[in-house]
Amino acid sequence: MKEKLAAFKAEMGEIWDLYMASSLLGWDQQTYMPPNGAVERSEQLATLSKLAHIKSTTPEVGEALEELKKYAETLDPDSNDARFIRRAKIEYDKATRVPAEKVAEYARVTALAQEKWVQARAKSDFSIFRPHLERIVELRREYADYFKPYDHVYDPLLDDFEPGLKTAEVKGIFARLRPQQVELVKEIASRPQVEDDFLHLKYEDQKQWDFGVDVITRFGYNWEGGRQDRSAHPFTTSFGIGDVRITTRVIENMVTSALFSTMHEGGHAMYQQGLDTSLSRTILANGASMAIHESQSRMWENLVGRSRAFWKFFYPKLQSTFPTQLGNVPMEKFYKAVNKVEPSFIRVEADEATYNLHVMLRLELEIELMEGTLKVADLPEAWNNRMREYLGVTPQKDSEGVLQDVHWSGGMIGYFPTYALGNLVSVQLWEKINQEIPDLDSQIEQGQFSALLDWLRENVHRHGSKFDPQELVQRITGSKIDPQPYVGYLRKKYSDIYGL
Amino acid sequence: MKEKLAAFKAEMGEIWDLYMASSLLGWDQQTYMPPNGAVERSEQLATLSKLAHIKSTTPEVGEALEELKKYAETLDPDSNDARFIRRAKIEYDKATRVPAEKVAEYARVTALAQEKWVQARAKSDFSIFRPHLERIVELRREYADYFKPYDHVYDPLLDDFEPGLKTAEVKGIFARLRPQQVELVKEIASRPQVEDDFLHLKYEDQKQWDFGVDVITRFGYNWEGGRQDRSAHPFTTSFGIGDVRITTRVIENMVTSALFSTMHEGGHAMYQQGLDTSLSRTILANGASMAIHESQSRMWENLVGRSRAFWKFFYPKLQSTFPTQLGNVPMEKFYKAVNKVEPSFIRVEADEATYNLHVMLRLELEIELMEGTLKVADLPEAWNNRMREYLGVTPQKDSEGVLQDVHWSGGMIGYFPTYALGNLVSVQLWEKINQEIPDLDSQIEQGQFSALLDWLRENVHRHGSKFDPQELVQRITGSKIDPQPYVGYLRKKYSDIYGL
Repeated sequence: MKEKLAAFKAEMGEIWDLYMASSLLGWDQQTYMPPNGAVERSEQLATLSKLAHIKSTTPEVGEALEELKKYAETLDPDSNDARFIRRAKIEYDKATRVPAEKVAEYARVTALAQEKWVQARAKSDFSIFRPHLERIVELRREYADYFKPYDHVYDPLLDDFEPGLKTAEVKGIFARLRPQQVELVKEIASRPQVEDDFLHLKYEDQKQWDFGVDVITRFGYNWEGGRQDRSAHPFTTSFGIGDVRITTRVIENMVTSALFSTMHEGGHAMYQQGLDTSLSRTILANGASMAIHESQSRMWENLVGRSRAFWKFFYPKLQSTFPTQLGNVPMEKFYKAVNKVEPSFIRVEADEATYNLHVMLRLELEIELMEGTLKVADLPEAWNNRMREYLGVTPQKDSEGVLQDVHWSGGMIGYFPTYALGNLVSVQLWEKINQEIPDLDSQIEQGQFSALLDWLRENVHRHGSKFDPQELVQRITGSKIDPQPYVGYLRKKYSDIYGL
Repeated sequence: MKEKLAAFKAEMGEIWDLYMASSLLGWDQQTYMPPNGAVERSEQLATLSKLAHIKSTTPEVGEALEELKKYAETLDPDSNDARFIRRAKIEYDKATRVPAEKVAEYARVTALAQEKWVQARAKSDFSIFRPHLERIVELRREYADYFKPYDHVYDPLLDDFEPGLKTAEVKGIFARLRPQQVELVKEIASRPQVEDDFLHLKYEDQKQWDFGVDVITRFGYNWEGGRQDRSAHPFTTSFGIGDVRITTRVIENMVTSALFSTMHEGGHAMYQQGLDTSLSRTILANGASMAIHESQSRMWENLVGRSRAFWKFFYPKLQSTFPTQLGNVPMEKFYKAVNKVEPSFIRVEADEATYNLHVMLRLELEIELMEGTLKVADLPEAWNNRMREYLGVTPQKDSEGVLQDVHWSGGMIGYFPTYALGNLVSVQLWEKINQEIPDLDSQIEQGQFSALLDWLRENVHRHGSKFDPQELVQRITGSKIDPQPYVGYLRKKYSDIYGL
């Protein structure tokens, strides 16, 4: 049976290689590819997806899995092999429902749609992107239909990012979260506002870049196994445990943009870099889910990067990097500025108090698109209406509204809720970490992050996707995904800053 | 039959996509990949090669080709379809001789060997590279053995770069060329030497880069379908007709290095960019052979870039870019300096008179390695001995000797002779071009290159690999590859410069 497993792993390793190659093609498309490469690139991505899908769904794979499943029952259920077989079987059952040609079409359509989204966003012209998004929504609805019967048409999409999680569960969590978060934003709005004009002076591009690099180097991002490049939308991608890359964009009159995005993507990347190398080239060589991934990125970005302890260490360095801009700004003023709560247009620039509202808006629109109650043509208007309703602001152009995010152009419907869930999980983990590392705060004040990273590696990173997200959170914290710790964290933080 | 052909092309298109994806993985490995990515990258390259090979060699492909071959006989023999079927059949017959596992092993071994070569070269330590090269030589000999019976063990390797050409033919051409070239170098050595110290002052990196970019932009390199990056060894690669990239390296105290390498790689790239788009995603979407490719790169580098006419236009620009270094150097002195003949260590920096001697040395060593009369362990010594014999110089370290070129680390044994053949072909074409564009010289003096590029596109580029190299040269010039025009060109040029 061991030989059978080894042969099966070799076969799965080749499929993994195809996905890693696809990832590199995708990275290149968003960083360095010249425009005329787009059409042929979309064919290449389609072919790689199709071949990976065909290889994943042969009868031989199915038969091997039937045998291996029995073998897995003889193993420690938490062992790499048992978990590998379990996850491979789940993915096989999912993949065999979808025809290879559909997978190829989806890859081709989304590769081209990403190019069109870049153009549409640059010109703030939704009409350029609209036909592509229409096709994507059609394809995603067809995709969901392959998984009938389902409780909800959105379930199969969500499951690709959050294995095992149901739309109803997410709605339940958000239903508890939303009124508390709306109330908090309202209370904050009634208080005197925080000043942050100085964050919008001109901050030199290269110095911003270098500062972000220094921060994540101290966090523990390993440059021998990664790099940072520029792209329109920051992202993390990997081509193996030894090659995990991030991207960012620098905005000269918004010093927080590149810095916090670098910490955010660095958090994702350190997760991938921390996978146990024994998982290499298997389906387990990935995060447990996107929510768990976001718990890592949001932890480094917010729980660490927007904390007072962090800035006690880094603010003097930032001041000496930008003496003209910050020389006369006291740390406390800066700390409040980077935590300013202000309803705004752009999700990735949003503060912690309003962030989840951006996500809920997207989730609701996605569900309506999938249910067929909202047409793509009506999306910009629906977006703007909901922005007004939730955040009291109206985007003046689609580039700061419906066109701001890359996700839909890549077909990633079902992804957005994972951001909010990640926020919740990050604080659940954070409470546990602070119990186990009582002096974490003072370590951070001294620029020491190794105990934190070690804890994350031991408890989260090394496991890869051996455990489903709810299971992992339960194992670590003793409870499932729960909004209360996050709400408590927000209330405590903003009571201090805004004197609620 | 048309549907059969369309289906076959779709299948071949997927194979092509796999090769293009491999090329991107290779480009990334040599430009941006962090060191820890090397091991997983080698697996990915192995898998892509293996899958492409398996797809290329199925019985279905063989059967389809048998039918299509008959169909091709009903077509214009010079049509795209007839030529596509012909070349696909040749490649199928070659590919089916080699087991897929061998192809994967070769990809894996060479991907790792390239990493080791970079290290070995940096430390000038052949022992780091030696075991990898030993394995590569073994694998290449095994490869040749799949093609038994052959006239010469080197034939199957050569055929991969020069379809249809035999080792005996190359030896014959070189036997005619060598004595004339040695005699020329001897005559030049007896003349007063040319001064070129001023080429070795400090020339700012970025200005060198920008100047090279400006030159190939004027040549007609299309940046919408390409880009230039940095790598240890300059190269050209493509991921489709719409995405043809080049790399270079800048050496601050050698202003000619980046500039001529950019022209050289630009020449390769314009060839790929000039392919007829109807050839996209077929096996014909490539140069006719490496020698024909080199005829393009060497033409732009030497026949254009080292000509007096070229510098009449560009020298004032170079002077104003580097006023301190060149302000007081008259053009004629600069022209002679960039054409200085001096036996030296590095092939890619060699002048036109000695260049082919570097190539012949490599060809002879490769043949001996393949015949088994030379061991890899003895290669550095054999290299140095032959350098002394042919060029009268002895490398002081292996980084300027046996470790200087990337080719062997990538398994590319059989490639080197194509450089010398490319030189010969470039002048055969050049004579024809000058007949058909009588005022070419004065166009170049005015920085006009479009008539030249148009001629090359019409006569060479657009055909891709429809014609074998000898056939293509014959079609264009009326004769096969012939050393005499090249010797005549060298003698005329250096008589002028050195007053022979």
